[in-house]
Amino acid sequence: MSQKIAASVITIGDELLIGQTIDTNSAWMAQELNKIGVWVKRRVAVGDNREDIWQALDNETLESEIILITGGLGPTADDITKPLLCDYFGGKMIVNEQVLEHVKNIFIRLKRPLLERNLKQAEVPDVCEVLMNERGTAPGMLFRKGKKIFISMPGVPHEMKGLMSNKVLPLLQQEFQLPFILHRTLLTAGVGESFIAEKIQSWEEALPAAIKLAYLPNYGMVRLRLTTQTNEKENAEQELDRLFAQLQELVKEWLIVNEDIPLEKALGDLLISKNKSLATAESCSGGYIAHLLTSVPGSSLYFKGTVVAYSYDAKETILGVNPETLATKGAVSEETITEMFKGLMKVTTADYGIATSGIMGPGGGTDDKPVGTVWVAVGSREKMVAKRLHFRFDRAKNIELTATNALLMLYQFVKGE
Amino acid sequence: MSQKIAASVITIGDELLIGQTIDTNSAWMAQELNKIGVWVKRRVAVGDNREDIWQALDNETLESEIILITGGLGPTADDITKPLLCDYFGGKMIVNEQVLEHVKNIFIRLKRPLLERNLKQAEVPDVCEVLMNERGTAPGMLFRKGKKIFISMPGVPHEMKGLMSNKVLPLLQQEFQLPFILHRTLLTAGVGESFIAEKIQSWEEALPAAIKLAYLPNYGMVRLRLTTQTNEKENAEQELDRLFAQLQELVKEWLIVNEDIPLEKALGDLLISKNKSLATAESCSGGYIAHLLTSVPGSSLYFKGTVVAYSYDAKETILGVNPETLATKGAVSEETITEMFKGLMKVTTADYGIATSGIMGPGGGTDDKPVGTVWVAVGSREKMVAKRLHFRFDRAKNIELTATNALLMLYQFVKGE
Repeated sequence: MSQKIAASVITIGDELLIGQTIDTNSAWMAQELNKIGVWVKRRVAVGDNREDIWQALDNETLESEIILITGGLGPTADDITKPLLCDYFGGKMIVNEQVLEHVKNIFIRLKRPLLERNLKQAEVPDVCEVLMNERGTAPGMLFRKGKKIFISMPGVPHEMKGLMSNKVLPLLQQEFQLPFILHRTLLTAGVGESFIAEKIQSWEEALPAAIKLAYLPNYGMVRLRLTTQTNEKENAEQELDRLFAQLQELVKEWLIVNEDIPLEKALGDLLISKNKSLATAESCSGGYIAHLLTSVPGSSLYFKGTVVAYSYDAKETILGVNPETLATKGAVSEETITEMFKGLMKVTTADYGIATSGIMGPGGGTDDKPVGTVWVAVGSREKMVAKRLHFRFDRAKNIELTATNALLMLYQFVKGE
Repeated sequence: MSQKIAASVITIGDELLIGQTIDTNSAWMAQELNKIGVWVKRRVAVGDNREDIWQALDNETLESEIILITGGLGPTADDITKPLLCDYFGGKMIVNEQVLEHVKNIFIRLKRPLLERNLKQAEVPDVCEVLMNERGTAPGMLFRKGKKIFISMPGVPHEMKGLMSNKVLPLLQQEFQLPFILHRTLLTAGVGESFIAEKIQSWEEALPAAIKLAYLPNYGMVRLRLTTQTNEKENAEQELDRLFAQLQELVKEWLIVNEDIPLEKALGDLLISKNKSLATAESCSGGYIAHLLTSVPGSSLYFKGTVVAYSYDAKETILGVNPETLATKGAVSEETITEMFKGLMKVTTADYGIATSGIMGPGGGTDDKPVGTVWVAVGSREKMVAKRLHFRFDRAKNIELTATNALLMLYQFVKGE
C-alpha cells in the first residue's frame, strides 16, 4: 500500500454556517487535490470567530499533513483570518512590496479609487511565504509548522481556483511524494442500488482490498465508482480496467455511460457520434434542459435552441399549439405535449426534440393532475414517444427530475435508433 | 446575552471528499436550524471510514450540544454508519417492527422485489430512539450521551429534509430553551465592498456589540447582513429594524432590494407590482435566465417565455434575425442583439424583454471578440438599452454573470420607468 498524504480543508465564513451560501469551493478543491494524489480526509467549516478558527487549526494539525484554508481575507472588518494566522504562527505584519505593487495596478486598471483598507491587503505575516494571487488583491499565504503545510487562500471561487491551479497544486507535487488515486465510474438508470448490490454481490465480495466500490444513488440513477490508490500506476490502471470491464458486463442492462460525465454530456457525445442535432420545447422545466445542454463546452455543435413556452400565448404563437387543445385538454396533457413537440420540429431544423409540460408546485395542482404531474415527449422527425411521469418533491427537485428524465428518455431513444 | 445552543453537522461520504458531490444538505440544514435559534458552530465532512467517523463524533461532542449526522445509511456495503453508531453508543442491533412494516409497505407500493438487504433497513441499535422516515427506508436515529443529542439521518436530500422538518426541528425546540436568531439582509450593486465599508465605517464602528455586520460580495454585487441573537425578540426586532433603516439610507444609491431574496425574485415582485410581463431571447446564456426566473414559484404570473436561439438558423427562423446581419456583423454584435430583442417582442406578448449573445468559452474567442465578450439588451416595447460586457471567468461563471447582469439591467430599467 502506498503512503497516504492527507489534507484537511477549512472554510471560514458565517455565511456557510447560516446556510446563506452553498460551499462549492470545497468540492472543486477536493477534485483537484484528488487528481494529484492528495487524499482529502476532512472538510471543516467554521464561522468568522477567532476561537473557532484557532480550534479548527489545532484540530486539523493533528489529522492531516496539508491544511488548506479559504475565506476571511477580504478588506472589511468581518475578515479576521489574516491577523489570526499571524498570531497563530507567531509572526508580525509587514508590507509585501510585490503585493503592494499588484494591488495598486489592479485599482489603476479598474479605474477605482484606492482606499487605505485596500492597501492593507499588501500586509502579510513575516512568517509566511506569499503566493501571488493574480486574480485579486488578497495574496495566498503559506505557513510551515514542523512537516505540516498550511495554505490560506481567499474564498472568492475564481481567485481560489487561480491560486490552486497556478501555485498550490504544483507546490504540493514538489513537496510531497504523492501516490496516484485512480477512479472508474459508470452510470446506470432504471434500477435501485439494492438490486444492483444483489446482482454484483459475489463480484463485490471478491474485490481486492485495495479497491473500493461506492454506490452513489440519485433518484432513479445510480453511479458506481471503483477507486484505488497506488504508486505503481500502470499495473493499477490495468487491474482497475479489468475489474471495471467485469462490472460493466454485470450491469449492462442498466448501463447508460461508462464515464464520470453528466447525462447532458453523454447525450451530446452520442449526438456528435451520429452527426445529429437537438432542440427542446420546455414549459414546466422552464429552460433548465437548455441550460444543462449549453453548460457543456462545444454544445453549439449539436444544440439548435429552445422555446420556453411558459404561457398559453407563447405555446400558441411560437409553437402553434391549438388554443382549443389547451382549452379542452389543458397544458399538461398528451395532446398538448404532442402539439408542442410537432411545433418545435416545425420552428427548428433539429433532428431530435424534447418537449415538457407539467405542474412543478407548490401551487397549481388539481385532483386529477396533482403537483409533480409531468408529460415528456422525445423523438425524431419520424417518431415521437410521450410519457406521463409523477414526482413527489419540491419545485426545484421536480424541475431537476423532469430535466434528467427527459434527457434520459431521449438518450435511450437515440441509442435505440 | 442569551444562551447559545451550538450544533455540529457531520456529513459522511467519500463522494464529498473527492468532490464528486456538492454538499447542499448542510446549507439547508443550517438555514433551518438557524430559524429555530440553533447556532451551527461547525460543519465537518468525513469519508466512509470507521476511524474518521468515530474521531469526528469524539471531536464534535466536545464542541456542541447537538450533533447532526447525515449519510452512510443505505443498504449497500459502503454504508457503515449504522453499525458504527451502534458500537459507539454501546448497543446491539434489533429489528424495529414499525420500520419493518414501513419498509415492506414501500416495496409493495413501488411493486419492487423486497430483498434481504432492504429488510436490514429495519434493524436499529437498541440504544436509539427511532425517528420514522416517511420518505424512505432508512430511519432517523436519536442517541443521547449526557446532555448531548446525536441524530443520524440519511443523506438523500428529500429524505433528510422530511425528517428534519417533521421530526428533528420540533424535537430540538422541545428539548432546548432556544434563543431567537434574527437577520436583516440587503443587496447592493455597482460598488465594491471596500467602498461600502468606507462609506459606513463610523456607523459600523458604533454598532452595539450584540449586532454583527457581514459583507457578502459576489462579483459586482454585495449583500450586507445584520445579525443578532436574543431572548427578547420584540426589542431586538425593533433595534435591528432601526439600524437596518440607517444602513439602507447610507447605501441607498447602490441599494437594489432590502430583503434576502435572489435578484430574479426581486424582479418578479417588481413586475407583479406593476402588473407587467417579461420574456427573454437567449443565445449565450442558453436558457439560464429562463431557468432562474421559473425557479420562483408563481413566476407564470409575469414570465411569458423564452427563445434560446443558440444556432444561426434558430436566430433567423424563430426571432427573424436578418442572415446578412449575422454574416457581416456576427452573432455577438450590437446589430444582432438589437434584432434579437425586436424579434422577441414580435413573437411574444411580453411588456419587457431581455436578449443576450456572447462567447462563453473555453473556445470561440477571437482577437476583437475574446471569450467573455457579451452583448445584453433590455427594454420595453418603446425603448431598448444595449450594453457590451466582458467577463474573465470560466464557462459556468460567464453564463451565471451574463444572467445576473441581464436581470440587474432589466431591474434597473423597470425601476427607472
